[in-house]
Amino acid sequence: MKDTYLLPKDLVAKTPPMGWNSWDCYAATVNEEQLIGNAEYMAKYLKEYGWEYIVCDIQWSDPVAGSTDVTYINFAKLNLDEYGRQIPPVERFPSAANGVGFRSIADRIHEMGLKFGIHIMRGIPRQAVHARLPVLGTNTTADRIADPFSVSRWNGDMYGVLNTPEGQAYYDSIFRLYAEWGVDFVKVDDICNTNMYPHNPYSAAHEVEMIARAIERSGRPMVLSLSPGPAQIDKQWHLTQYANMWRITDDFWDDWRLLKEMFWRCEVWCGQGREGCWPDCDMLPLGKLRIGFHDPGMTRFTKEEQRTVMTLWSIFRSPLIMGGEMRENDDWTLSLLTNRDVLRLIGHSHHARQLQRTDSAAAWHSYDEDGSEYLALFNLSDEEQEISAEIDFGGKAIRELWGRDDLLTGANSARIPAHGAILIHAK
Amino acid sequence: MKDTYLLPKDLVAKTPPMGWNSWDCYAATVNEEQLIGNAEYMAKYLKEYGWEYIVCDIQWSDPVAGSTDVTYINFAKLNLDEYGRQIPPVERFPSAANGVGFRSIADRIHEMGLKFGIHIMRGIPRQAVHARLPVLGTNTTADRIADPFSVSRWNGDMYGVLNTPEGQAYYDSIFRLYAEWGVDFVKVDDICNTNMYPHNPYSAAHEVEMIARAIERSGRPMVLSLSPGPAQIDKQWHLTQYANMWRITDDFWDDWRLLKEMFWRCEVWCGQGREGCWPDCDMLPLGKLRIGFHDPGMTRFTKEEQRTVMTLWSIFRSPLIMGGEMRENDDWTLSLLTNRDVLRLIGHSHHARQLQRTDSAAAWHSYDEDGSEYLALFNLSDEEQEISAEIDFGGKAIRELWGRDDLLTGANSARIPAHGAILIHAK
Amino acid sequence: MKDTYLLPKDLVAKTPPMGWNSWDCYAATVNEEQLIGNAEYMAKYLKEYGWEYIVCDIQWSDPVAGSTDVTYINFAKLNLDEYGRQIPPVERFPSAANGVGFRSIADRIHEMGLKFGIHIMRGIPRQAVHARLPVLGTNTTADRIADPFSVSRWNGDMYGVLNTPEGQAYYDSIFRLYAEWGVDFVKVDDICNTNMYPHNPYSAAHEVEMIARAIERSGRPMVLSLSPGPAQIDKQWHLTQYANMWRITDDFWDDWRLLKEMFWRCEVWCGQGREGCWPDCDMLPLGKLRIGFHDPGMTRFTKEEQRTVMTLWSIFRSPLIMGGEMRENDDWTLSLLTNRDVLRLIGHSHHARQLQRTDSAAAWHSYDEDGSEYLALFNLSDEEQEISAEIDFGGKAIRELWGRDDLLTGANSARIPAHGAILIHAK
Amino acid sequence: MKDTYLLPKDLVAKTPPMGWNSWDCYAATVNEEQLIGNAEYMAKYLKEYGWEYIVCDIQWSDPVAGSTDVTYINFAKLNLDEYGRQIPPVERFPSAANGVGFRSIADRIHEMGLKFGIHIMRGIPRQAVHARLPVLGTNTTADRIADPFSVSRWNGDMYGVLNTPEGQAYYDSIFRLYAEWGVDFVKVDDICNTNMYPHNPYSAAHEVEMIARAIERSGRPMVLSLSPGPAQIDKQWHLTQYANMWRITDDFWDDWRLLKEMFWRCEVWCGQGREGCWPDCDMLPLGKLRIGFHDPGMTRFTKEEQRTVMTLWSIFRSPLIMGGEMRENDDWTLSLLTNRDVLRLIGHSHHARQLQRTDSAAAWHSYDEDGSEYLALFNLSDEEQEISAEIDFGGKAIRELWGRDDLLTGANSARIPAHGAILIHAK
Repeated sequence: MKDTYLLPKDLVAKTPPMGWNSWDCYAATVNEEQLIGNAEYMAKYLKEYGWEYIVCDIQWSDPVAGSTDVTYINFAKLNLDEYGRQIPPVERFPSAANGVGFRSIADRIHEMGLKFGIHIMRGIPRQAVHARLPVLGTNTTADRIADPFSVSRWNGDMYGVLNTPEGQAYYDSIFRLYAEWGVDFVKVDDICNTNMYPHNPYSAAHEVEMIARAIERSGRPMVLSLSPGPAQIDKQWHLTQYANMWRITDDFWDDWRLLKEMFWRCEVWCGQGREGCWPDCDMLPLGKLRIGFHDPGMTRFTKEEQRTVMTLWSIFRSPLIMGGEMRENDDWTLSLLTNRDVLRLIGHSHHARQLQRTDSAAAWHSYDEDGSEYLALFNLSDEEQEISAEIDFGGKAIRELWGRDDLLTGANSARIPAHGAILIHAK
Repeated sequence: MKDTYLLPKDLVAKTPPMGWNSWDCYAATVNEEQLIGNAEYMAKYLKEYGWEYIVCDIQWSDPVAGSTDVTYINFAKLNLDEYGRQIPPVERFPSAANGVGFRSIADRIHEMGLKFGIHIMRGIPRQAVHARLPVLGTNTTADRIADPFSVSRWNGDMYGVLNTPEGQAYYDSIFRLYAEWGVDFVKVDDICNTNMYPHNPYSAAHEVEMIARAIERSGRPMVLSLSPGPAQIDKQWHLTQYANMWRITDDFWDDWRLLKEMFWRCEVWCGQGREGCWPDCDMLPLGKLRIGFHDPGMTRFTKEEQRTVMTLWSIFRSPLIMGGEMRENDDWTLSLLTNRDVLRLIGHSHHARQLQRTDSAAAWHSYDEDGSEYLALFNLSDEEQEISAEIDFGGKAIRELWGRDDLLTGANSARIPAHGAILIHAK
Repeated sequence: MKDTYLLPKDLVAKTPPMGWNSWDCYAATVNEEQLIGNAEYMAKYLKEYGWEYIVCDIQWSDPVAGSTDVTYINFAKLNLDEYGRQIPPVERFPSAANGVGFRSIADRIHEMGLKFGIHIMRGIPRQAVHARLPVLGTNTTADRIADPFSVSRWNGDMYGVLNTPEGQAYYDSIFRLYAEWGVDFVKVDDICNTNMYPHNPYSAAHEVEMIARAIERSGRPMVLSLSPGPAQIDKQWHLTQYANMWRITDDFWDDWRLLKEMFWRCEVWCGQGREGCWPDCDMLPLGKLRIGFHDPGMTRFTKEEQRTVMTLWSIFRSPLIMGGEMRENDDWTLSLLTNRDVLRLIGHSHHARQLQRTDSAAAWHSYDEDGSEYLALFNLSDEEQEISAEIDFGGKAIRELWGRDDLLTGANSARIPAHGAILIHAK
Repeated sequence: MKDTYLLPKDLVAKTPPMGWNSWDCYAATVNEEQLIGNAEYMAKYLKEYGWEYIVCDIQWSDPVAGSTDVTYINFAKLNLDEYGRQIPPVERFPSAANGVGFRSIADRIHEMGLKFGIHIMRGIPRQAVHARLPVLGTNTTADRIADPFSVSRWNGDMYGVLNTPEGQAYYDSIFRLYAEWGVDFVKVDDICNTNMYPHNPYSAAHEVEMIARAIERSGRPMVLSLSPGPAQIDKQWHLTQYANMWRITDDFWDDWRLLKEMFWRCEVWCGQGREGCWPDCDMLPLGKLRIGFHDPGMTRFTKEEQRTVMTLWSIFRSPLIMGGEMRENDDWTLSLLTNRDVLRLIGHSHHARQLQRTDSAAAWHSYDEDGSEYLALFNLSDEEQEISAEIDFGGKAIRELWGRDDLLTGANSARIPAHGAILIHAK
């Protein structure tokens, strides 16, 4: 059956996006050198495995972000143009001088065969509002399109935008600029779960629609990624129509409790992904992390836990966005990102479903386009244990995709270390 | 792509079931004459349009149900066999004598080319528990498999069943009996939303699994329908694996407020139906209702509202279960149930999605297998109004499927009476 | 037993405050003439009955408030001094010229033997923050003491103040000014129920403490009144320590549904009032209302409902704050405010308790200091009915305090019109 | 001011009750020997300090309780009389033979100068209901007064009683029996917080009223104690009218987390106690515990924590009900129960209020009838620390009531070990 029902937005992200994002390693301090350096690494080592996006995360318009503290500065002075639009400051992005913005960085990344993404906060800078700056393409000023009650609970830079033609004009004006820069991916923050009002975490739904419309009007396809989570499952119908990926969790970090909890989150969103629409488990906190947090170090996940991350994200088909400074990858970390058999699930598996979940174990099953099957078994307990699933592969040949056939105790069972995973392919 | 991933339960209900249920007209008082009479009507007038199930609703094992009151009697004396299994009493079902149970009724319905369904409450009769009756196929007694804390909030007949092998044996014993009777459809009540514990309306999930297993073990395919609602959207992953249909609403009746609210419920469940799995908007309260409630009369819905029911249920692809006494259908009511063009959506449409919903209007769109498209426009306000949708049918030919082309004001717009609906087919 | 345990704040409001507030009649548009005019009326007609406060409600620092619209203007330009403190603008308060502020108005009201109150929003003006104005008595600026995430949900003027010594200095600076002006009563808004964060409506508790401290430091006793409600009963322990009165309801207006609901609110707060601490049922929407809302008219309450308001507020011992433009009082309205027998309960009754409450009736009982007893019976239904309470007055003499002895059918029963009340005194 | 407003129920428990309860040491297995043995101990060692109640806790009508397991047995066979009333079985209470019931035990305890209490579950035994036993003093049977939907969530013995005259007759019949036995105190369980329905933990309020009425009708004063908690603060108005004490917490045990949490609970209920009405922090898990749980041992609280328990309960004026097997008290445990200066607060302090509470410290203050003052300082952290309160005792003499003057660092400050408390008396 031909997919005649694809929305325009679904022409991108036909499979879960794979890329890199600066937050986990550089927090609010990311700069040009880091973006280009990681792009070069990706082009050299990872591109052939499907990795393609390089995404510059939050607070890039603040010339001094992170200089004094790792948290955001209240009432920070952002770098704005005369229309209140955020512009990368030359202090951190030298090639942005002379009105070039992110164009030069995007060009270089495109030349490497990769794609470029940026982060934005939903809304318009408070600084533009209180200075009553003009809104491009309108006769109005920023204070007339801003909602003084629509404020993030964790970053004080912006006011939400009112659902009016002038408000839409503002969003059109920033996405036209991003299209000129050559942006391929936009991570919009404080929008998927605003927590602004009791009982309505998705209170900025109209801004999702305005942004989706602005992207379409910009003429340039861009992946629309919504943060932070958790997204609400009862809004799947809306997210599916307007966005390409949405976070199903609050920020994910290298902490076993968060990873264990992700099994519950994936359960809830089981079956909801399809072309152009991907529930997102958040970045992979692997390799070298927290440099910009003044607390650098390799991931705190054990190797077993790291395989569990890669296995769950893959069979669930979450977007895969590497969070560590890739130039500091060790062999182990690189091996996780280049296991072709595991990564195949991102692009070629379907109908994943959770077979069971208890406090101590979980099992997922899915199919490959070629008719073969996958079974992932997870040990969620703190002790090694035997785990099996009620599934019958007939006489199919069995292989463990992390090279751990020795752990198998049958076609659908294995002896798995604490917090570990095995991924069986039955062909 | 072949549906290799169909679960055994998905071999039934490949499209949304269509049938009749006794509750809306006969409440707890339904009897053999009424079941057979409605079956004969269905065979004669409706079968050719796809209607096939005749379902006997609640309290059929109570010999005197409804004799004194329309509500349930506390600690009613049910008709049980020596294993605590409910048996239709001859007072209401004469053909049940001599251990025949529902077999004779099912046979006659099958001979008409139709299928037969029954209602059960989740659990085991309290009467069996306090009498400590044996559980068939075990060495234990009813009081050992019952959970004294698992009680319905609205019908006092049963205790929930513990998740043990002996508990499973009980469920196996009743479904084996239903298979012997020839039951094709089981509506299980007090299971989809038990409201038993704060924050866990789906607290009887293990009984859903036990019942699904008992059906499979019975050897006879049966549609598994779960009530009452609202089902929880965050349990779609579980419902999808074990049930064929589940109520997304509490009891639906002929009240505009409930119908208007259904638009919100359908929105939440938009996109969740597929072969073997159907979110259920509940019975159609059309035609002659409330006979068993001592308050007989035709539906209180206006004709516009009745078309709205049929249109929403059809484009959403809810199961269609007629609630009125069909032998009292007038021409209008019959016409609603025999509009082939509208009913085609039940079996042949896909990818329905809500385009918009406000307090005063809603619009849904879907595709037909043949590539044509459907657009339903709903006037949710109390005044006639023009309603349109942002959709472009190119040059396709437009037709309104309720014969109201005169209301159209364009290919995607119409002037619609209060509470009314139009259903456009673009081919 | 001597009340050695009185807190400093309890030296004011030893009985529930009685006064007038400008909101219900003048909304955000109140001016000097209206304040003085109502004060003169009170001095002449009501003072002898215990009424004493004249309170200027919200948005008085906005020179053009209400000029274009009855709702607040986003990013309105407030009249501030060089330290970001709001100052009454001469456009609306001519006597405020030359730095006099509210001093002249307060003086005149004091000369009449009355007391003067003002409304403030919790926090510091955003306008001061984004202009980075200095905070009096510190070396810091407004942007350093403001919390960008602490914003009202319904008025965009202010940011909450951080719980720091500099934040305290700001509050000290404004209350010192109010003391200089001669303010006796401060209604602080957006503080009792901020609704800012899920599960924490009392999220500005630290600002309540800061304000209480600032009042004490100002050297002038002032009644501290907290709005809006509903206050949370689980914070009674905190409110009791820091405030003199706190709203137990959202804004109350002349709508029967709100009045009926107040019975439930009074039930919850039954027994919580004491010297210096009064749960507050909000203003009395009686007489001429909504002038400043461009919708002037007499109260929509029936006479029965008006007696019900006065009876419930009195036996519950709520503060009594008249909301109507008093100069437009008709004889009936004035009679409600001058019933000495009823008003006696405000100052002299104790141990009020609800005897019963159903959907159709309520009964309250309390004692007078002189040993006599009160019984209030309320008809909450839409039909006249006989209402009685299980209470035995022995041989005490019975009198109805609204002059309606004819409605009594016994010492503890009466035939009461729909929505009406009777108030029995047994002596 | 004379307390003319005392309710009949307030004639008992004029100060917080002090006594012993069998649960913490004997669970569901308590017997006659244990009751009498602890009574003798109390009479000898504790009576002079104010301790007086001996309370027999749950499941005493079950002849075999605890024989196989420490949890309740589903559908246990209770010892009932012909009217469905629970009777102590001779297997556990030999003196109950020949229809004596608890009379003999009560007599002996009274002779020691003490008082006797029993535990009951709200409702009527299911066993009586399904056997359709007669209700004493009526023409009806148990199944007609039972509510099949009103069941405890943790003990399956009972059904709730309908709010009808016949239901009242049942409660009257059991309390008349208790009066005949000589019961002075009734702990009613599954009534203060039933958790039965979402959003209505106090769903059995009508049974509280029925029981209070039955006590009054019995002609014998009995303390009415409601369990389990947490009680809802928004029901203080109802609890105050009908009960003498009510649990503000779920079961309290010797676990620091529960003790730390109690500070929050006491904060919420601060100021709510008065003659006849006492918020209850639950039993004191001190001394020898868990004998009936097959896990005997001394309390797991450290000595510091034990002093914290006694100090908080005393200044808050919670009922003091010892939970340990008193005959196994060591000197330390006995010293806790016989500190006259500390216990004086139970009977003679007033107007306790929390001065502060953070995650690491708390402070409470109250007055003695003699005008002196108390200050309790609590270290809630895991490290020793200096703690002080903003309170000024003028020149009053300071003494620490646990004999730890050496820890004082000032009149309102002390250096306190982890989890410890000091109690200052300023006279």
